Amino acid sequence: MSEDSIATAPTLPAKAALWLRRHLLDLDDFSRPEIEMVMDTTGAMREVLRRDVPRVPTLRGCTVITLFYEASTRTRASFELAGKALGADVINISAGGSSVEKGESLIDTVRTLQAVGADILVIRHPASGAPYLVARSLQTSVVNAGDGWHAHPTQALLDLYTIRSHLGDIRGERVVIVGDIAHSRVARSNLWALTAMGARVVICAPPTLIPAGFRSGAKGARADADNTEEFALPPAEVETNLDRAVEGASVVMALRLQKERMQGGLLPSLREYATLYQVTEERMARARPGALVMHPGPMNEGIEISPAVARSVQSVIEEQVTNGVAVRMAVLYLLTRSKQ
Amino acid sequence: MSEDSIATAPTLPAKAALWLRRHLLDLDDFSRPEIEMVMDTTGAMREVLRRDVPRVPTLRGCTVITLFYEASTRTRASFELAGKALGADVINISAGGSSVEKGESLIDTVRTLQAVGADILVIRHPASGAPYLVARSLQTSVVNAGDGWHAHPTQALLDLYTIRSHLGDIRGERVVIVGDIAHSRVARSNLWALTAMGARVVICAPPTLIPAGFRSGAKGARADADNTEEFALPPAEVETNLDRAVEGASVVMALRLQKERMQGGLLPSLREYATLYQVTEERMARARPGALVMHPGPMNEGIEISPAVARSVQSVIEEQVTNGVAVRMAVLYLLTRSKQ
Amino acid sequence: MSEDSIATAPTLPAKAALWLRRHLLDLDDFSRPEIEMVMDTTGAMREVLRRDVPRVPTLRGCTVITLFYEASTRTRASFELAGKALGADVINISAGGSSVEKGESLIDTVRTLQAVGADILVIRHPASGAPYLVARSLQTSVVNAGDGWHAHPTQALLDLYTIRSHLGDIRGERVVIVGDIAHSRVARSNLWALTAMGARVVICAPPTLIPAGFRSGAKGARADADNTEEFALPPAEVETNLDRAVEGASVVMALRLQKERMQGGLLPSLREYATLYQVTEERMARARPGALVMHPGPMNEGIEISPAVARSVQSVIEEQVTNGVAVRMAVLYLLTRSKQ
Repeated sequence: MSEDSIATAPTLPAKAALWLRRHLLDLDDFSRPEIEMVMDTTGAMREVLRRDVPRVPTLRGCTVITLFYEASTRTRASFELAGKALGADVINISAGGSSVEKGESLIDTVRTLQAVGADILVIRHPASGAPYLVARSLQTSVVNAGDGWHAHPTQALLDLYTIRSHLGDIRGERVVIVGDIAHSRVARSNLWALTAMGARVVICAPPTLIPAGFRSGAKGARADADNTEEFALPPAEVETNLDRAVEGASVVMALRLQKERMQGGLLPSLREYATLYQVTEERMARARPGALVMHPGPMNEGIEISPAVARSVQSVIEEQVTNGVAVRMAVLYLLTRSKQ
Repeated sequence: MSEDSIATAPTLPAKAALWLRRHLLDLDDFSRPEIEMVMDTTGAMREVLRRDVPRVPTLRGCTVITLFYEASTRTRASFELAGKALGADVINISAGGSSVEKGESLIDTVRTLQAVGADILVIRHPASGAPYLVARSLQTSVVNAGDGWHAHPTQALLDLYTIRSHLGDIRGERVVIVGDIAHSRVARSNLWALTAMGARVVICAPPTLIPAGFRSGAKGARADADNTEEFALPPAEVETNLDRAVEGASVVMALRLQKERMQGGLLPSLREYATLYQVTEERMARARPGALVMHPGPMNEGIEISPAVARSVQSVIEEQVTNGVAVRMAVLYLLTRSKQ
Repeated sequence: MSEDSIATAPTLPAKAALWLRRHLLDLDDFSRPEIEMVMDTTGAMREVLRRDVPRVPTLRGCTVITLFYEASTRTRASFELAGKALGADVINISAGGSSVEKGESLIDTVRTLQAVGADILVIRHPASGAPYLVARSLQTSVVNAGDGWHAHPTQALLDLYTIRSHLGDIRGERVVIVGDIAHSRVARSNLWALTAMGARVVICAPPTLIPAGFRSGAKGARADADNTEEFALPPAEVETNLDRAVEGASVVMALRLQKERMQGGLLPSLREYATLYQVTEERMARARPGALVMHPGPMNEGIEISPAVARSVQSVIEEQVTNGVAVRMAVLYLLTRSKQ
C-alpha cells in the first residue's frame, strides 16, 4: 500500500496532463486557457487546504529549493508551505549565510543546486531577468518568485484567483492598480494576467512613477529603467488622477510605496503622495459598490492605503495571502507534470 | 489505514480534552491543576522521546511557524524538534532575512503568517508584551517563546518538570533563583509556576538587579523598568546575601548575567559579582544535601556559576534542555486541543 | 505495517554491520577496506536517488543537526537533502541568528544540541580541530563538514567515489591536485583517501602555497600554519610546475583560489597565478586521454580553471556535487549503525 493511498489525492483538472511548461518566469506569453488551467488547479489545492489534514503526498520524493537573494517573509514561507503540503522536501537558501557570500556566480550556484538534486528551483533576485538566465542554464524547473522590477508571476496568479473567487468572469471589469508602477514587478505581471483574462486595466500613479512606455500611451512599449527595459510592457490605460481612475472600478489594488523613492527625487513628500494617491474610504465610494481592495503586502498603512480601507469588508488582502499557498501548490504541481 | 495507526499514539492524560487555552503567553494565571495537566502531558511526550523511533503523527497536517526577533539556538531548535516529533510541519522565520527588514509592522507580519496557514505561531520578541498584542490580533494560537524581560513560560514549565522529576511534590520546598532578576523573563515565569505549585521561592541578587516591586517587599507589586511594568510581579522572598539564601534550599537556579549590565552602571565589576553571587561548591554545601543546580543557559561559567558546579552530579542543566523538547511537544499538543 | 515496508530499503553492504566509528572527523586513519565500505554504501544510496521516489525511511525518527560557523551553500544543502532522503529530521543552525552570537562557547552549544536530541551533529568551523574537541565532549555522532585548513572528509569521499565511478581501481593512477594546498582542507583529506586507495598523488602549487612539511619533501611531516600544525600531513609528491605535474595524469583536481591570499603576500598577482597554474585545455592535453577534471567548487573560472575546461566532457564537476548527496547519505547511515 503506497502512502499515496493514505490521503485522497486532489481532484486535479484532467487538462493538467497537457501542461507543457518547464518554467514559470512571467505571464507575458500565457494564453487564457493556460491561466484557466492554473486557476482550476488552484481550486483543487484550495480544497486540499480546507481538509482536516491539509496535506497530500502528490510531490513526495520531490526536492524544492528556494533561493532568495532578497528578503522575504510571505513569499518564501508560502512556497515552503506549498511544497510541504504536497509532500515535497523544501530546502531554503538565502543569500546571507551561503556561498553566495563567497562571490560565487549565480549560474554556478544554480548549477550546483541542480546537481544536488533540486527538482524545482524557486528564485528571487534583485536583477530583472535573472530567472531567465537561470532557466536557460538548467534542466531543473525554475519559478520566478520576483526579479527586480520585472515580474512576480505567482503574485499575479494569486491576485487573479482572489478576484475571480469574488467576481467570476472578469471580462470588461475595470481594475485599477495604483502606486509605484515603474518599480513594481507585481504591477507588470498583473497587467499581463488581467488583460489576458479580458479585464480593462487602469494604472494610476504620479507621472514620475509611470514607465516611459506607458506615459507615451504606446501599447507594448518598453520600460525605461533597470534592465526591465529588455522586456515588453503589457498594455494598460494610464490615469494620473486617482479619483477619476477609481470611477466604476471593480477592483482597486494599491502597491507598496518604497520610501527610498523619495531620496531618488521621484516623489516630493510622503504627505503629498498620501494626499493624492492613498486608497481611502472616500475614493472607494467612487468605485462600484462592493469593489475589492487588494494589496500585495507588506502595507504602509497611512501612505498608500488608509487603515480603515485595509481592514474594511471590501478588503481581500488576507485572502490574497491564503490563496498564495494554493496557487503555489498548483504551480509546483503543474511544473512537475511537464517532466513526465 | 491512516498513518496514525503506524505509530502508537502517546498515552495522553484524559483531562487534556478539557484544556481550553488558545494561547500560552505566561503562567501568571495558571492554576495548579492546569500546570499538573501540562506536567502529565509532558510525561507522555517524554515516553515518546524514549522510543526507538521517537516520532508520532499526532499533529500531522499542522503548521507551526517560529518567528524569532532575537537570536536563539536552543529554544528555536527545541520548538522545531518538538513540532517535527509530533509530525507537524515547521517553518522558521528570523528577523534577519525576512520582510521584517522592510519595516513591516509586527501585526502585519503575524496576520500574514496566519493567512499563510500557521496553526501555531511561536514568537520571541524583545518587547515585553508583544505576544499579547499578537494574540489579541489572531485566531491562530500564540506561544510566547520569550518577550523582553517579561515572560518565558515554556522555560518555566521545563524547569518545573525537571524539578518535579527529582523532588516530586514541591510544596514547601525552598527554591533559590540567583542573578539578574530585574531583566529576567525566566525568573518571572518561574516565580509564577513555582509559587502556584506551593514552593517557597527566594530571589537573590544585588539590590540594583531586583525590581523595585520586590525591593519594597510588596507582594504582587509592579516591575520598574522596560514595559514589564505593565505586568504584575509574582510573589517572592528577597535575600541579597547568597550564603543566607541557599541555606536549606532544595533547588538553586542561577541566571545568565548579561555583561552589558555593567555598562549600564548596575554592576561594579564582574569579579565582584562573581565573588558575591557565583553558585560555587562552598555555597551548595549550605543547601540541602543533593539540592539541584539549574541554569537556563547559555552559561557564563566562572561568572554566575562555577565550572565545577555546572558539571557536578547535582547539576540537571542538560536535563532541562532535554525536558524542554517534551514540554514544548506538550504545549503544542494542548494548544491544538483548544480548537476542537 | 511499518512505514519501512512502503519503500524498498536500499541494498546495503552486509559488512556495513561491522562499521564501528561513531564520528567522521578525517580520513587520516581510514584503511582501504573501510573506505571500500563507504564506497559500497554510497553505491546503494546512488541507486535510491535514481528511483522515481528517491526517498527511504531508513533513518526515520533520527535528528540530524547541521551547525555551520562558516557560509556554505552546497555542503549544507547536500547534508540536508541526504538526511531528508533517508527520512531523518534535519535542523539547521548557522552562526548568525543563534546563541552563538551571545558568545556561548562551542562546547556549551554542542552539549545543548546533544541534549535537545541530536543523533548526528554535522559541524563546519573555521578552527582546525574544532570537530575533534566537539567529538570528545559528546556521545552524539559528529561529522566534520570542514574545519579550518585541516579536513573535509565527506568532500574527499565524494571525490573518490566520482573518480572510481569512471576509473575503477585507482592503484598506481596519477592524481594531480593543483592550487592553494597550504590552506586547503579539501586537499588534505583527499591526500589521505587517495593514498589509502593506492593512487600516486602529486600536489602542485607555487612554493608559497605548499605547506613547509611538503616543501621539505618529508613524508608525514607537519603543516606550518593555522593550528593544522597539530595534524600530520599526508604523503604526497610535490611539483611546482603544472605542465610537468599533469604529464600522464588520470585526474586533475583544481582548488579554489581564495583571493585574500594575495593581500597576505603569498601571491604576486591573479594574472600571474592564472598563467602558471590555471588548468587549461593545453595543459589537459598533456594528461592521459580522457583524464578527469575536478573541482570542489565554487569555481573562480578564468583563474584556477578555464571556462572551457570546466565545461568540457572531461569535467565531472557536477557529478561530484550529485555524488555528494549519496556519500553523505552513506555516512549518516553508517554512523547510526555504530550505535546499535
